[in-house]
Amino acid sequence: MSNPIVPFTLEGASVLHQTFHVRWDEWRALDGQSRTAIVHEWSEWLTMQEGAEGGEQSAAYALLGHKGDLMLLHYRADFVGLLEAQSQVQHLRLSEFLDVSNSYLSIVELGLYESTRKIHDDLNERGIEPGSPEWESASAEVLDRQRRAMAGRLAPEIPESRYLCFYPMDRKRGEDKNWYQVPFADRQKMMHEHGMIGRKYGGVVKQVISGSIGLDNWEWAVDLFADSPVPFKQLIYEMRFDEVSAVYALFGEFCIGLRVPSEKFGSFMKGEIRNAVE
Amino acid sequence: MSNPIVPFTLEGASVLHQTFHVRWDEWRALDGQSRTAIVHEWSEWLTMQEGAEGGEQSAAYALLGHKGDLMLLHYRADFVGLLEAQSQVQHLRLSEFLDVSNSYLSIVELGLYESTRKIHDDLNERGIEPGSPEWESASAEVLDRQRRAMAGRLAPEIPESRYLCFYPMDRKRGEDKNWYQVPFADRQKMMHEHGMIGRKYGGVVKQVISGSIGLDNWEWAVDLFADSPVPFKQLIYEMRFDEVSAVYALFGEFCIGLRVPSEKFGSFMKGEIRNAVE
Amino acid sequence: MSNPIVPFTLEGASVLHQTFHVRWDEWRALDGQSRTAIVHEWSEWLTMQEGAEGGEQSAAYALLGHKGDLMLLHYRADFVGLLEAQSQVQHLRLSEFLDVSNSYLSIVELGLYESTRKIHDDLNERGIEPGSPEWESASAEVLDRQRRAMAGRLAPEIPESRYLCFYPMDRKRGEDKNWYQVPFADRQKMMHEHGMIGRKYGGVVKQVISGSIGLDNWEWAVDLFADSPVPFKQLIYEMRFDEVSAVYALFGEFCIGLRVPSEKFGSFMKGEIRNAVE
Amino acid sequence: MSNPIVPFTLEGASVLHQTFHVRWDEWRALDGQSRTAIVHEWSEWLTMQEGAEGGEQSAAYALLGHKGDLMLLHYRADFVGLLEAQSQVQHLRLSEFLDVSNSYLSIVELGLYESTRKIHDDLNERGIEPGSPEWESASAEVLDRQRRAMAGRLAPEIPESRYLCFYPMDRKRGEDKNWYQVPFADRQKMMHEHGMIGRKYGGVVKQVISGSIGLDNWEWAVDLFADSPVPFKQLIYEMRFDEVSAVYALFGEFCIGLRVPSEKFGSFMKGEIRNAVE
Amino acid sequence: MSNPIVPFTLEGASVLHQTFHVRWDEWRALDGQSRTAIVHEWSEWLTMQEGAEGGEQSAAYALLGHKGDLMLLHYRADFVGLLEAQSQVQHLRLSEFLDVSNSYLSIVELGLYESTRKIHDDLNERGIEPGSPEWESASAEVLDRQRRAMAGRLAPEIPESRYLCFYPMDRKRGEDKNWYQVPFADRQKMMHEHGMIGRKYGGVVKQVISGSIGLDNWEWAVDLFADSPVPFKQLIYEMRFDEVSAVYALFGEFCIGLRVPSEKFGSFMKGEIRNAVE
Repeated sequence: MSNPIVPFTLEGASVLHQTFHVRWDEWRALDGQSRTAIVHEWSEWLTMQEGAEGGEQSAAYALLGHKGDLMLLHYRADFVGLLEAQSQVQHLRLSEFLDVSNSYLSIVELGLYESTRKIHDDLNERGIEPGSPEWESASAEVLDRQRRAMAGRLAPEIPESRYLCFYPMDRKRGEDKNWYQVPFADRQKMMHEHGMIGRKYGGVVKQVISGSIGLDNWEWAVDLFADSPVPFKQLIYEMRFDEVSAVYALFGEFCIGLRVPSEKFGSFMKGEIRNAVE
Repeated sequence: MSNPIVPFTLEGASVLHQTFHVRWDEWRALDGQSRTAIVHEWSEWLTMQEGAEGGEQSAAYALLGHKGDLMLLHYRADFVGLLEAQSQVQHLRLSEFLDVSNSYLSIVELGLYESTRKIHDDLNERGIEPGSPEWESASAEVLDRQRRAMAGRLAPEIPESRYLCFYPMDRKRGEDKNWYQVPFADRQKMMHEHGMIGRKYGGVVKQVISGSIGLDNWEWAVDLFADSPVPFKQLIYEMRFDEVSAVYALFGEFCIGLRVPSEKFGSFMKGEIRNAVE
Repeated sequence: MSNPIVPFTLEGASVLHQTFHVRWDEWRALDGQSRTAIVHEWSEWLTMQEGAEGGEQSAAYALLGHKGDLMLLHYRADFVGLLEAQSQVQHLRLSEFLDVSNSYLSIVELGLYESTRKIHDDLNERGIEPGSPEWESASAEVLDRQRRAMAGRLAPEIPESRYLCFYPMDRKRGEDKNWYQVPFADRQKMMHEHGMIGRKYGGVVKQVISGSIGLDNWEWAVDLFADSPVPFKQLIYEMRFDEVSAVYALFGEFCIGLRVPSEKFGSFMKGEIRNAVE
Repeated sequence: MSNPIVPFTLEGASVLHQTFHVRWDEWRALDGQSRTAIVHEWSEWLTMQEGAEGGEQSAAYALLGHKGDLMLLHYRADFVGLLEAQSQVQHLRLSEFLDVSNSYLSIVELGLYESTRKIHDDLNERGIEPGSPEWESASAEVLDRQRRAMAGRLAPEIPESRYLCFYPMDRKRGEDKNWYQVPFADRQKMMHEHGMIGRKYGGVVKQVISGSIGLDNWEWAVDLFADSPVPFKQLIYEMRFDEVSAVYALFGEFCIGLRVPSEKFGSFMKGEIRNAVE
Repeated sequence: MSNPIVPFTLEGASVLHQTFHVRWDEWRALDGQSRTAIVHEWSEWLTMQEGAEGGEQSAAYALLGHKGDLMLLHYRADFVGLLEAQSQVQHLRLSEFLDVSNSYLSIVELGLYESTRKIHDDLNERGIEPGSPEWESASAEVLDRQRRAMAGRLAPEIPESRYLCFYPMDRKRGEDKNWYQVPFADRQKMMHEHGMIGRKYGGVVKQVISGSIGLDNWEWAVDLFADSPVPFKQLIYEMRFDEVSAVYALFGEFCIGLRVPSEKFGSFMKGEIRNAVE
């Protein structure tokens, strides 16, 4: 097999998803004054994270079902920043009423299939060999240019959309159907078609892809943001028929959250749901 | 591969299944007066949900086996409604004696295989291209008409049948047998044959399909309602031989519940089973 | 594909397997008088269930290993009966010292491969179409006759054998090897050969098959009863080489129990094992 | 398919593996006198089991990692003996500080591939049909002779080696590669080659195979005994390349224990590791 | 099939990975003086392990996410050493606030694909048969020479890098794609290409491979050490396209840790993250 082409990627913000169960019985057994103080401390912390710059924010979501009651989504500049966020949460008094149920660790990733194809075509034409010094410097230059051009997408703000859909995924490495053995041109074409569907929903669904190869149990994590959950279902159903998803996508657990802004966190803890999420 | 045809779907009520274990020892250790008050509060809440309109109801089921003692099935207009229902249950005093063991999140879905085929055939004949403005407006019109015609099925009442059979399922995406790569005409034919078996049991088994792609861990959820569990076994066994199930169906866990109406919930909590479910 | 033939089945008693861990430390911390009273209450209940008619009995088994300490096998006329049995056990005082670890729900099933073949052959010869009214009435008649002839096997007594071997199973639906796509004549021949091995062990091992399609997580449950565990191993090993098992059988967890009759239950709880099971 | 040949097996001692976590905090919170008394009771019991005859012994092992702190390996004449051993352990006072984490149930098994081949060849030559009375009596005679010749291996003593390696395994029944459909002559040849590798390590690694088809979740259990863990790794790596392992072996969890003789059990509980296992 | 060639391996230090959850609530409920004393005892112990010789060290890492809060990586001369380390940790007072969540047991391994090829080629040329006494003594001589030459890599020091990436892996034994049935020359070539990618990252990522066939649930364990997590992602993504990974690699869970040196352990327990890991 000739040397397979690895697509260029750009790495951005570090990402940690955390889900928690609330021990509601203990929470409600607490006196009102303590509850107020604890919610106040939590909301104050959350307000600061919500107001941070792109790539440095945190946001809270209410969860439906048994996977958890609460999700925190953290963006930070690096893993030390994530560890600090995790530790800060552990030290907030509300954490005495929370049990961590799950988490996911990843880094915002832009997969540059088109650029990868272009530079390979371009350098091939000019007779420059992959791996040669000339090739290395030419591709480094492209990556630098892209990194500057895409700085905003590498350090994104967390969209204010009411709904979050989170799931991890892999590309299949079956005995017969193996993504990592598909010729690059075919991979690039499939990714392009895949992207065209995403673009159809562009006005309705915002998407942040993060990579987790070597960091957590799946290869990628997907966060979709929208003001209704129905487009999540429609978008992912439509995508399931495109070739790269139909044949090569393996999915982990799906998790749906409803954004709870810091100033409404008290309502969420009191069970005033419409007030908390609308 | 030519562009695969995605079947039209209509989305209706939002659905949450929740299962709970009862901490019986703690419950029975409680004094009789408290138990009466707690059951009263719960039944009052449940009575209101049972009496709501189609697409807005909740119902309770007793479970057999170790998966849980109690299931709640909630239909609501949207996910905020479901989150509110979930939170209301958490705030009922009985919840101090319940542990959530599982849940499933979905949206009532009508898959319009026949309409999809008809509109594609029709527009093809008229030389209208999929994705063109003419095509989009023609199909939107069909969907609107269907949505009005099927309003009742999109916001269903929970049948009063004594038995519920719930399970989630996927369509197989194997290396060789892949539902999402089967030509639409074949998919439509298989779904039609599948539907014919369902129709044979129509007088005995009511069925509500909900979609959960992008929402929970499987692609669809199935709820069957009947006055005896035997037709569940017979219907699903017969279906297992039709092509779409035999080759393409993957099943999650099956869960059987016996309806406990709100006015008999106290009997259920006392272990007066025949009184509670008959 | 021509219409696949679904074998006729007869449904009998409803079946619930339950396994429990005993909280031995708490049990032994109890005073002797309370232990005696609790065992007495349990044994009295169990004696009644053991003495019930075929299809209505319960039996207790001691378990080896970490899956549980105790199994209850319940036969009842219907699922309401099972729910009642489950609730009765929960209300016995011993349950304060038990944790449910697993369960399985099914219905005694007789698969009529031979009758199915005969009626199809017979009606085919007479030119009667499957699904026609004549066909329906002819097959209903056969089923009725069989149901009467097999009444005892549909509502079995729990054999008094010392050992129980319980396991659930599926028929494989692989991409290439798919039981539900095998022509009926081949299925019937394989089931016949499978049955011949069972018959060889007929004097030593009693077998009760129950169906759980649509009821629990596997398609069937198997209970074998014998006075030594060695024939379980020999029978199942020999069967593993017959085609229907070698190619199409998928097995769940195996569980071995030693019968503890009601009058010896006190010995079991005291750790007087030889007295309890011999 | 012609009738597949089932290899003859001889069944010996009944075997139970149990693993436990020690609740170290509670143990160390106990006063020294109680700890001494509890260790004394345990050691006394263990001394008796260590000193029993072949096929009737128990032995204790310290475990590395999170799967448990302690393993007990029990050999007994039958399952009643195992149940008695399990119950005795539950009644020793140390059990108040132990949580069972896992177990495995099996019966010592000698697979007679060579004898099976010989008797089939021999009787075939003499024109005697498998299953005929002559065939049955001839094979029963061979089994009896073998059972007497191998009495020691059927009721083995637990080797005094410092290290134990335990794992369960299956033979693959894939859609294409299916051990139970391989012609007997090929199976016998593969098992022979497999045995030759085992023989190379014969002076260093002792092996006890037990069968668990119909008894527990895998088909066989393997116990290897040696004075260093390195030969386990080397032997199993070398075997992984022989055909029967490379193609047909499926492995469960591997568990490594260090023998703690009864007279050193007190050292183990005090954390005096070198004294306990060297 | 001709006799497959098993690559020579050298075995070095014994390795135990342990992950722990901290019970933060209980920890913080403790008075300051006790916390200081407990951290002091732990740090003292850790300082000694950090200062030990190559192949005898332990190191601590903070973890991101729900898999644990803390990881300990132990290298020791043998499994008795590991058991002693495990027991020492259990006896440190901090362990009263720790719950073990996972572990992995292995032995540092150098796979000598090149030497294996050379000696086979060399001895083949000289007409010496594998397994013959001449062959055995020639290969033993090579192994001895290599063991001396690679003594440092067999008893490595734990790199001081800020980040650790740990994961276990298997080679695939599929029905069609089976590593253990690939001719040795092809395996050696694939491993060589795999190694070339590792070498590209040599200045940035240090790697320690340990073998766990026969010892734990996967075949190998990989530890990568670097000063940023991004190269882990890049290296493993690039490798996923080389043939041996694309086709034959199966991965377990990935775990990322940030080194906490003994003198900063107190900062970690106080939540002073930047101080603890930078």
